[in-house]
Amino acid sequence: MIIGGGGMVGQKLAQALTRSAKIANHEITSLALADAASPADIAEHSSFEIKKVVADITNPVAASSLVVDKPDLIFHLAAIVSGEAEANFEKGYAVNVEGIKNVLEAIKATGNGYKPKLVFTSSVAVYGGPYPDVIDDDFHLQPRTSYGAQKAIAELLVNDYTRKGFVDGISIRLPTICIRPGKPNKAASGFFSNILREPLVGIEAILPAQKSATNIFASPRSAVGFLIHAASIDAASLGDNRALMMPGVWGSVQDEIDALRRVAGDEVVSLIKEQIDPVIEKMLTNWNFPRFTSAKALLLGFKSESTLDQIIQIHIEDELGGRITGLTK
Amino acid sequence: MIIGGGGMVGQKLAQALTRSAKIANHEITSLALADAASPADIAEHSSFEIKKVVADITNPVAASSLVVDKPDLIFHLAAIVSGEAEANFEKGYAVNVEGIKNVLEAIKATGNGYKPKLVFTSSVAVYGGPYPDVIDDDFHLQPRTSYGAQKAIAELLVNDYTRKGFVDGISIRLPTICIRPGKPNKAASGFFSNILREPLVGIEAILPAQKSATNIFASPRSAVGFLIHAASIDAASLGDNRALMMPGVWGSVQDEIDALRRVAGDEVVSLIKEQIDPVIEKMLTNWNFPRFTSAKALLLGFKSESTLDQIIQIHIEDELGGRITGLTK
Repeated sequence: MIIGGGGMVGQKLAQALTRSAKIANHEITSLALADAASPADIAEHSSFEIKKVVADITNPVAASSLVVDKPDLIFHLAAIVSGEAEANFEKGYAVNVEGIKNVLEAIKATGNGYKPKLVFTSSVAVYGGPYPDVIDDDFHLQPRTSYGAQKAIAELLVNDYTRKGFVDGISIRLPTICIRPGKPNKAASGFFSNILREPLVGIEAILPAQKSATNIFASPRSAVGFLIHAASIDAASLGDNRALMMPGVWGSVQDEIDALRRVAGDEVVSLIKEQIDPVIEKMLTNWNFPRFTSAKALLLGFKSESTLDQIIQIHIEDELGGRITGLTK
Repeated sequence: MIIGGGGMVGQKLAQALTRSAKIANHEITSLALADAASPADIAEHSSFEIKKVVADITNPVAASSLVVDKPDLIFHLAAIVSGEAEANFEKGYAVNVEGIKNVLEAIKATGNGYKPKLVFTSSVAVYGGPYPDVIDDDFHLQPRTSYGAQKAIAELLVNDYTRKGFVDGISIRLPTICIRPGKPNKAASGFFSNILREPLVGIEAILPAQKSATNIFASPRSAVGFLIHAASIDAASLGDNRALMMPGVWGSVQDEIDALRRVAGDEVVSLIKEQIDPVIEKMLTNWNFPRFTSAKALLLGFKSESTLDQIIQIHIEDELGGRITGLTK
């Protein structure tokens, strides 16, 4: 089951599972895509049943209904993204904290030895400064956004429900997903994608922050890879702290622009227009991430891109049919 | 207002406030003691009104009723203790997480510029190993009990509601309170007090763990001092992370026994009987704390005892009228 199966990562994960038809050496016999609104159809032909479920996880009864068929593996991706969680405090807590609590409670209430694997997507937003030069896996969490606080709380819940034996949980802290396809969403970090995605198809993009702003990136393809790998490993080796920072590519906005120039040329880069947004700037002050070691995740076999050029190439392959359409000649 | 005003620390805090009649250079004009059951009377004569309120904070309506009079200062001490929170998972989350969330929501809902100071008692139980030799203020939280997870979640809530301007919060992580007066409670760390308290009045006490078990201690008098000091300082200097590990005396069970021998003699020490309890032992494996720097708290002027001998002497002064009654001669 994918909770949040209608979202960008959820849809890509569903496609990947449909193509492979197995996960962790198990044949997939059915897949349920759950979301607050009806998820889109998966284009690929699948060898197993795909069920679509509309459920509002902020409602405990709806959350309970999700686990009546006792899925062996649950990906919990459903979330209110950072910008929206900051703007709508109640909605953020309702979905990002109460939502996962309701799902965990529903699993616990099932009983009879039901103990599914739960892969929860946390975020690099659980971190906050001041930072050391390099952040290791034991760096403390000081979230500076409601989204980050909600993800940190959810990690604590996943750890505690796991420790008590109710679920077999793992929380993966995703880097900023880049290049996020489709339309801009309400994630405050969205511009890191926008300034690459829009110019690649010939559209101007606003850069609302300084070029010195840094972040840690992974492609949507890597995000799906992280999720599938997290479902495949034995999380018991992590002990009681089931949260892991994923690997990614560290870089500044300037590094992104340089990579875009190398991959697509000056004409595409010229479509980036600078226009500072103070709200975005403020959220960025808290997020100006240094490098992460992601030592545990690397040791466990999680893999990301190693350059921003690769991240751009993957977008061109996966979303643009291999062609940069933003060039006039 | 003291939420949890019927508890041991709540009662001692109420007594101290009654004696001083002021806090942070403000005259106290009224004090409300709120608890799930009616709090005991405060013996001392008070120069201001003391109101007793029975309210179950797990009920949002009851939590709202607490702030109708808009107290300027709220001490949030109400909690299900560690042993009980581990045994009763639902009750622990209801009181230790939903309870404080309801109080924070009630404050937020009041609006009209109402932004009280909130002093929340967190706990050293938010920590979990593996530990370095000395734990500094930036050491990450890996709670290994539901109680510790609940306190860590509550800290995140206090930080986020503070960051958003709904409340002026500060979370103080209390060391193990020792010597806890009265009857043993359901705190798993209770025996650290029992083995001192009971022999001092001539009663045998069970030592359920190894003498090598270490912990960090502060007297009830220090706990009250921490709370009053936390209410008195400008917490804004802490920035967005409003949680502070309090100072305390680090020592092993053997150190406790040695101190008891120095203060009260062999006869009193002979009343300690060793009898390992595997449940307590297991919780202790997670808590075998090294020393803490408590650097931020010391810098801000928080003060604790510096020896276990002082901790025992304070108990004799405050609880036993200055006499060791456990001696036969």
